[in-house]
Amino acid sequence: MAISSDKRAFAGAGPAEMRGAIRAGAFRGDTSGLCGGYLQGNLVILPAAWASDFFRYCQRNPKPCPLLAVSDQGDPGLPALGAAIDVRSDLSGYRVFENGVLVEETADIGARWRDDLVSFVIGCSFSFEEALMAEGVEVRHVAQGRNVPMYRTTLQTTPAGPFRGELVVSMRPFSTADAIRAIQITSRFPEAHGAPVHFGDPAAIGVGDLARPDFGDRVDLRPGEVPLFWACGVTPQVAVGHARPPLCITHAPGHMLITDLRGAPTGLAA
Amino acid sequence: MAISSDKRAFAGAGPAEMRGAIRAGAFRGDTSGLCGGYLQGNLVILPAAWASDFFRYCQRNPKPCPLLAVSDQGDPGLPALGAAIDVRSDLSGYRVFENGVLVEETADIGARWRDDLVSFVIGCSFSFEEALMAEGVEVRHVAQGRNVPMYRTTLQTTPAGPFRGELVVSMRPFSTADAIRAIQITSRFPEAHGAPVHFGDPAAIGVGDLARPDFGDRVDLRPGEVPLFWACGVTPQVAVGHARPPLCITHAPGHMLITDLRGAPTGLAA
Repeated sequence: MAISSDKRAFAGAGPAEMRGAIRAGAFRGDTSGLCGGYLQGNLVILPAAWASDFFRYCQRNPKPCPLLAVSDQGDPGLPALGAAIDVRSDLSGYRVFENGVLVEETADIGARWRDDLVSFVIGCSFSFEEALMAEGVEVRHVAQGRNVPMYRTTLQTTPAGPFRGELVVSMRPFSTADAIRAIQITSRFPEAHGAPVHFGDPAAIGVGDLARPDFGDRVDLRPGEVPLFWACGVTPQVAVGHARPPLCITHAPGHMLITDLRGAPTGLAA
Repeated sequence: MAISSDKRAFAGAGPAEMRGAIRAGAFRGDTSGLCGGYLQGNLVILPAAWASDFFRYCQRNPKPCPLLAVSDQGDPGLPALGAAIDVRSDLSGYRVFENGVLVEETADIGARWRDDLVSFVIGCSFSFEEALMAEGVEVRHVAQGRNVPMYRTTLQTTPAGPFRGELVVSMRPFSTADAIRAIQITSRFPEAHGAPVHFGDPAAIGVGDLARPDFGDRVDLRPGEVPLFWACGVTPQVAVGHARPPLCITHAPGHMLITDLRGAPTGLAA
């Protein structure tokens, strides 16, 4: 079977089929745009001794860290997100950190699995971007074929044990009319970071030059447009960097876990 | 200072003042109707060795167990819910369970506090009942001066470690027009159990005779009214009863933790 990063071969594939292709090594690309309508998630795997504080960190910071599921200790399955999910093999790319330092990028973490590991799956913004575009609201970085621009702010998250640090935000520019619609639409997706945390003056949240994001790519702001800022799933990675656990495994940027959940999961929606 | 269960003396008291009165031993009643507009919560305190699985249980069952806050291990404070909260003294009544068996009802758990205890605060339905009444929707058990009727169902919650068991629901009857409004209004309060889980035929969720609730009081159903069923905060108590931890401390029924949070807490709302 050929290894591919070409998404065209997987247009129309459902979540189980896509995870199967990834598990078999047939797809190694990022998952943006795949399995439309299904929730995708950020992955953070930690040893049990660090998991309780990280669990608290997510509970205390639900906008950057909306928890979709937390595994049993040592169990690579996540039945709440999909019957046959195996977090050791079902993502198309992983990053391995030791003491807060990136030591490996890999497509299979089976050899590193231990009986004390706990997996956390955190919602990502792909869901609300789909909803915006479905309602005719242009998402600039998608229209420009770029990654979303992300910025470190001076807003501090609520700490839990060793996990702490600044909020990271993603930015999308809109006309004022579309900004109002974007606030309405994303409010319906609390499991995908929900409503924005700020709009307008970047300096008010400690962001300097919008043209120089800390992560991702710059995008164009047109005359009269307002930047909107959403809590971002890179925030827990910053918190893990502060905590320096002996082992932490995450998804590689853009290589999310594709779940069987459609839109707002029943258990999370009000 | 006189010990009282008379709420009239505390009309208009804010959360900090009310918790102060409770801490000083000046109020021992239930907290229904006190501190209007502020969130109240169910309390579950467990040893750390049991806390991780209970944390998972709440995350997996957000409708019966919407988490408002989880304390640091051994810390009796809950800064996310109020700056000076001390869970050892700020509730007007507690229940102490050993191996799943009720051994004491008390108004102060200071002598039982240990460095390994973790406190969980879970939203309760007082918030949405206030919102219903504020919009002119009659809440029958309040109008009849009774406790809400609660029923064990045959619906199973998602287990986590030793925590498992059936969903307990509360019931409120409405005309069909008010039922629709009640679904709309309570959907806005995910931190207070959110939208109902069922309406109509009680047998469909394993409930027999509505006139014989498993907890609380029966209320009148009038001709043409439909019973609506909400996930209930008694559910985690059933799960704790199955798990039989060596120690568990909860609020006494109706004696909730009064928080400083108004309506939908900022961090939880989308």
